[in-house]
Amino acid sequence: MLLNVDDYRRAARRRLPRGLFDLIDGGAGDEVTLRRNRTAFERIALRPRLLADASSRDLRTTVLGQPVSMPVLLDPTAHAHLIHSDGELGVARAAAGAGIVYALSTLSDVSLERLAAETTGPKWFQLYAPPDRAGVIAVLDRAQAAGYEALCVTVDVPVGGLRERARRSHMPLPPQLTPRLVAQAAMRPRWTIDFLAAKKRPGGVAVRSAPTRPAPSGSRFITEDDLALIRHRWPRPLLIKGVQRGDEVQRLIELGVDGLVVSNHGGRQLDGVAASIEILPEVVAAAAGRVEVFLDSGIRRGTDVVKALALGARAVLIGRPYLYGLAVGGEAGVVDVIETLRAELDNAMALLGLTAISELGLAAIQIPSGFGSRSDAGERLLT
Amino acid sequence: MLLNVDDYRRAARRRLPRGLFDLIDGGAGDEVTLRRNRTAFERIALRPRLLADASSRDLRTTVLGQPVSMPVLLDPTAHAHLIHSDGELGVARAAAGAGIVYALSTLSDVSLERLAAETTGPKWFQLYAPPDRAGVIAVLDRAQAAGYEALCVTVDVPVGGLRERARRSHMPLPPQLTPRLVAQAAMRPRWTIDFLAAKKRPGGVAVRSAPTRPAPSGSRFITEDDLALIRHRWPRPLLIKGVQRGDEVQRLIELGVDGLVVSNHGGRQLDGVAASIEILPEVVAAAAGRVEVFLDSGIRRGTDVVKALALGARAVLIGRPYLYGLAVGGEAGVVDVIETLRAELDNAMALLGLTAISELGLAAIQIPSGFGSRSDAGERLLT
Amino acid sequence: MLLNVDDYRRAARRRLPRGLFDLIDGGAGDEVTLRRNRTAFERIALRPRLLADASSRDLRTTVLGQPVSMPVLLDPTAHAHLIHSDGELGVARAAAGAGIVYALSTLSDVSLERLAAETTGPKWFQLYAPPDRAGVIAVLDRAQAAGYEALCVTVDVPVGGLRERARRSHMPLPPQLTPRLVAQAAMRPRWTIDFLAAKKRPGGVAVRSAPTRPAPSGSRFITEDDLALIRHRWPRPLLIKGVQRGDEVQRLIELGVDGLVVSNHGGRQLDGVAASIEILPEVVAAAAGRVEVFLDSGIRRGTDVVKALALGARAVLIGRPYLYGLAVGGEAGVVDVIETLRAELDNAMALLGLTAISELGLAAIQIPSGFGSRSDAGERLLT
Amino acid sequence: MLLNVDDYRRAARRRLPRGLFDLIDGGAGDEVTLRRNRTAFERIALRPRLLADASSRDLRTTVLGQPVSMPVLLDPTAHAHLIHSDGELGVARAAAGAGIVYALSTLSDVSLERLAAETTGPKWFQLYAPPDRAGVIAVLDRAQAAGYEALCVTVDVPVGGLRERARRSHMPLPPQLTPRLVAQAAMRPRWTIDFLAAKKRPGGVAVRSAPTRPAPSGSRFITEDDLALIRHRWPRPLLIKGVQRGDEVQRLIELGVDGLVVSNHGGRQLDGVAASIEILPEVVAAAAGRVEVFLDSGIRRGTDVVKALALGARAVLIGRPYLYGLAVGGEAGVVDVIETLRAELDNAMALLGLTAISELGLAAIQIPSGFGSRSDAGERLLT
Repeated sequence: MLLNVDDYRRAARRRLPRGLFDLIDGGAGDEVTLRRNRTAFERIALRPRLLADASSRDLRTTVLGQPVSMPVLLDPTAHAHLIHSDGELGVARAAAGAGIVYALSTLSDVSLERLAAETTGPKWFQLYAPPDRAGVIAVLDRAQAAGYEALCVTVDVPVGGLRERARRSHMPLPPQLTPRLVAQAAMRPRWTIDFLAAKKRPGGVAVRSAPTRPAPSGSRFITEDDLALIRHRWPRPLLIKGVQRGDEVQRLIELGVDGLVVSNHGGRQLDGVAASIEILPEVVAAAAGRVEVFLDSGIRRGTDVVKALALGARAVLIGRPYLYGLAVGGEAGVVDVIETLRAELDNAMALLGLTAISELGLAAIQIPSGFGSRSDAGERLLT
Repeated sequence: MLLNVDDYRRAARRRLPRGLFDLIDGGAGDEVTLRRNRTAFERIALRPRLLADASSRDLRTTVLGQPVSMPVLLDPTAHAHLIHSDGELGVARAAAGAGIVYALSTLSDVSLERLAAETTGPKWFQLYAPPDRAGVIAVLDRAQAAGYEALCVTVDVPVGGLRERARRSHMPLPPQLTPRLVAQAAMRPRWTIDFLAAKKRPGGVAVRSAPTRPAPSGSRFITEDDLALIRHRWPRPLLIKGVQRGDEVQRLIELGVDGLVVSNHGGRQLDGVAASIEILPEVVAAAAGRVEVFLDSGIRRGTDVVKALALGARAVLIGRPYLYGLAVGGEAGVVDVIETLRAELDNAMALLGLTAISELGLAAIQIPSGFGSRSDAGERLLT
Repeated sequence: MLLNVDDYRRAARRRLPRGLFDLIDGGAGDEVTLRRNRTAFERIALRPRLLADASSRDLRTTVLGQPVSMPVLLDPTAHAHLIHSDGELGVARAAAGAGIVYALSTLSDVSLERLAAETTGPKWFQLYAPPDRAGVIAVLDRAQAAGYEALCVTVDVPVGGLRERARRSHMPLPPQLTPRLVAQAAMRPRWTIDFLAAKKRPGGVAVRSAPTRPAPSGSRFITEDDLALIRHRWPRPLLIKGVQRGDEVQRLIELGVDGLVVSNHGGRQLDGVAASIEILPEVVAAAAGRVEVFLDSGIRRGTDVVKALALGARAVLIGRPYLYGLAVGGEAGVVDVIETLRAELDNAMALLGLTAISELGLAAIQIPSGFGSRSDAGERLLT
Repeated sequence: MLLNVDDYRRAARRRLPRGLFDLIDGGAGDEVTLRRNRTAFERIALRPRLLADASSRDLRTTVLGQPVSMPVLLDPTAHAHLIHSDGELGVARAAAGAGIVYALSTLSDVSLERLAAETTGPKWFQLYAPPDRAGVIAVLDRAQAAGYEALCVTVDVPVGGLRERARRSHMPLPPQLTPRLVAQAAMRPRWTIDFLAAKKRPGGVAVRSAPTRPAPSGSRFITEDDLALIRHRWPRPLLIKGVQRGDEVQRLIELGVDGLVVSNHGGRQLDGVAASIEILPEVVAAAAGRVEVFLDSGIRRGTDVVKALALGARAVLIGRPYLYGLAVGGEAGVVDVIETLRAELDNAMALLGLTAISELGLAAIQIPSGFGSRSDAGERLLT
């Protein structure tokens, strides 16, 4: 019975070859951060209001000036076509139908132009830093021409994380049809049939010159100069994804950034970092309303959305949840996951006694002492 | 061996069809609040007195001016007749025999007049807001005419919670005899025999016009206007059930309320809220003795009653515990559960060196730092 | 392999009929306090000294002026003869051989005179309050005549705790040879042979008139008047066992008490109280060196002894550990347990760099913030 | 699949006779400290920097003036030849090849001269205090003559810890080929073949006169006088291993020590002490940059190295990790473990946005409140 995102996760595990499931589901190292992304949400308690008539709730909001039907967006992810033949196009159609933003990954299997042509919804383009200046300019111009409304620069994957679970499942990075994967696929006939039937591939990557694997050491580090170049060339809203400290926000704002995504890449990069939701307060405080702050990593419930927004996020992004849906039912599965989260968010708003997203604030939550990352503790320890 | 409430719970699980058990036992969402309702009690430690002669203990107290034999009352609950043919009438007789309050639910299977006619004990009537003003007035007048001593307005079920465990057991809401439930019943012959033998149904609901399922969106939100109307029409003590914040107490008192029930509906409504016992201190502080404060959600032991009263509750209410007793033994089972809790409470009083309920106070407990919900933490985080 | 007290516990479980094992091993209620007695010790960390020559350690100390070979004494316990035919006499001989105090229980199966006659070691007599004044005087005079060096008045058993585990094992209180116990014994032949062979019972209880089961309600509550009478009649050192609050220490000192035993009766009385080791600091602070403070409940390791003494205890008492030893090997088993703890304590002293018991102090430990019971938290919560 | 140190641990468990594995893997007592050494690292969170070009990382540093390729050194350990026929010589060759320090144990199976002759890398010599003054002088002169660059005096093994797990596996200390060990070996043929084939033993112990088992009580306590003698006789850098308190650092510096190793001997000595990483801050604060501070006990991941260095350690030492590698693959296995940790450290530096070891500081981590051992808590409790 598919009642919530965890149900979709379990169903996806039964549907996908093991290596492919572990590729999307696993985290880095000992998966400490992967677990912390969830437990940190549980430490925050909700505080419902009484005597409020919340009989009609309005979940709409705007992100970087763009209207969306609810504050849940779709993170850029890779490998959608391996998961289901509907691929990125299916995901984008689901997002468009739901009235929320889809962010296309540099590592997608479909060209950015094709995706832009086939979807009607709001769309962002996600950029890893290509190795050369000319490449950056070319991509930005293509994305602008194709009508992407915002650019999201991912800064937390200068090198790949140590994704041991995926390695244990013999999943090559980037994914390839190795004999082991074929063997695993033999136990997942529904996936295999869908995979083999999908003869007509979209034929291309989002950015043909984009690296599809972690580039040689250093090639994906994004410096202030890189960012200045991007800012210079990209006239529309610009987001930085992978922010994990409040003390760097001022510098990012000075560089002209419009939005920040607090993220630890779903616990897939550096194991041992704090949960995104623990970092959010210091980033929101540093941003001081000058730029919009977003969050991903760990969102699995409508109440998680509430908690993030109460702490100051403009919206949240989800990655694994919609990939689980894609694995289970293709485009329709993505729709189901989106609508499940919407229903949960709506139920939470009703039970909180709130009628509009703008009413979400600190009054709606209770935070345990010690929550968050403003640790002058270190300084204290050594003095 | 039925020594405590948990034993009755296990016995009820063996007695009831799975869906029915999950309906009463389950919580909302991931059941985080359901568990927190219990763990929060364990964080509070008791502090016994020495050299006190507590050889005779008096557990009597009053609730809203009404004498009761102990500070444990019976929460309003639905579906008693599905659990055992003794139904609400059996529960009410058990409460009357025990000298404690029974609160009849709007959603009961017996009319409020019939129950009032057949029980001799103190009784409250619980009200969900009916959809229209005329309906409210009619119900209040009937309850007053039938002699209910107090009215308890439930404000935390404007919409239903996401009770996934019950849904997984294929239990329809409201409960119906679906083929699946019949199949489950086949494995529970004692329940089935009792159910089929109960041919003469009480024939009615507490309030014939009451909605037996979550009404169309918004119809159960109770606003200040609704409350003013109720207060105007109901001359006897009025309680609000579902209070979860101290900062709303002042407004409720100004609206003329006589009692507050701190409750999260047993973890069945919004998953992720704090435990009732964590919220109690801020509500008691805000009430400042002007109205009586009650608590439900999580009471399973006599020592839990002690802890709640030490933190300022006038009495506690239990729901699931007596339903477990009802499932196991009908009216007699309810009596057993009530007397088990009474014996535990009496034993705790003796070992604490206390002779009267009025002696319970903060001196009897130890609270860990960080307990409770007065979290200015949120404000601190963002400044 | 019997390396530590937990090993003896496991061996005792294999040796004793289930009901008998559960009688001595179990706690009250949900056994929250039973577990907390252990976990609280784990929260305290030890801090070894460097560059200290602790090549010879002296574990001797005095308790109430009496020299003992180490600061570990034997708690009064009941039912020794059911556990092993060596009974209290065997335990007392083990204690005498080890040079430590044995405290005889009022509920022992041997008369206090017989035990005094057959042992050469230091001995205390433990008193429950008998129902009448004449009875108290008679017992005190007998104990004084028999040469008991100190009197230990147990104040935390005015009524029995809710020992559910023992009840589930069908162990009657006081223990009787019921058919169920006989059935359990059939699976424990070594215990049965020892039990049946022990034809010559010591013939008597410590105090013939002593109640062997919880007396009618109230008969064991010890009041200030009772204590004044005892103090008046007993010229030697007087201890109160069962202290659980610092704010009652001053009154006890004014009543002429010489020693305090911080104890929760091994988690067998009121479930939900804090661990003894958590209460110790406030009692030590209140005693301010005017009386000696002891501790029981939860001691299983030599390092536990260190922690209690570092927090200000004069010595600790053990109950279950030596009963496990008695079950496994009679008197010799008790000796083994005592010497195991002595070796552990000696090892800990060496590794801490300490040579004498008097060197144990707060410098030897690290206490987590929030440890202990001085909770003004309650007051804070409601203001 | 051998991806990390835990994988090597599991492989070592399959490779070694049980008693031998437990000898190196087990801790003292209840292994509370063994577990705490790990959980304490998990409580520290990492804080990555953005917009830093860390495309080339330099892991080199110096320890006591000596260049090393990374801040991970090899702890002195005993019994290498029992684990694999490559023995200490193999470990030393692995360290030399990796460009890191190997510290030879007094208890090694190879003479200190032989090892010095056969390795080209930086090497320390570890000293337990021999029973007599002449013995100390002789060893120091031999170590100096053989070219050891630093002396590491272990002060936390004045007597052996209570290593119960090893005792349960019937592993004699010092290890001997008992019938039980032979029986265990029969189930580990690869280890047995390697063991039997290793006919040519190195023929000697590091220090022929060194005690190979805990000496009679007191013989290994190292006093200030011992340390003064050693300092007088040893002209090169001198380290003290086993520091567990900040308040003794000043005295050690006055005695002329050059380096401190915060260590609890991997949880093998006094069970119940805090984790090394919890003690590190107070030692670093007390050292105040006058001597270099090192850490061992619990390092299993490259991110653990980062955390220790961020808290002020100059480098860390590993023991069990390389013994697991030795068990699995001899010298090559040690190399694999070293390179695994190097790769993890390098990955962590890249993802933290750091290019040099010297950039690691408190800004790179987040410490939970209450972390560390500066417990004036004790004083607070009793006042």
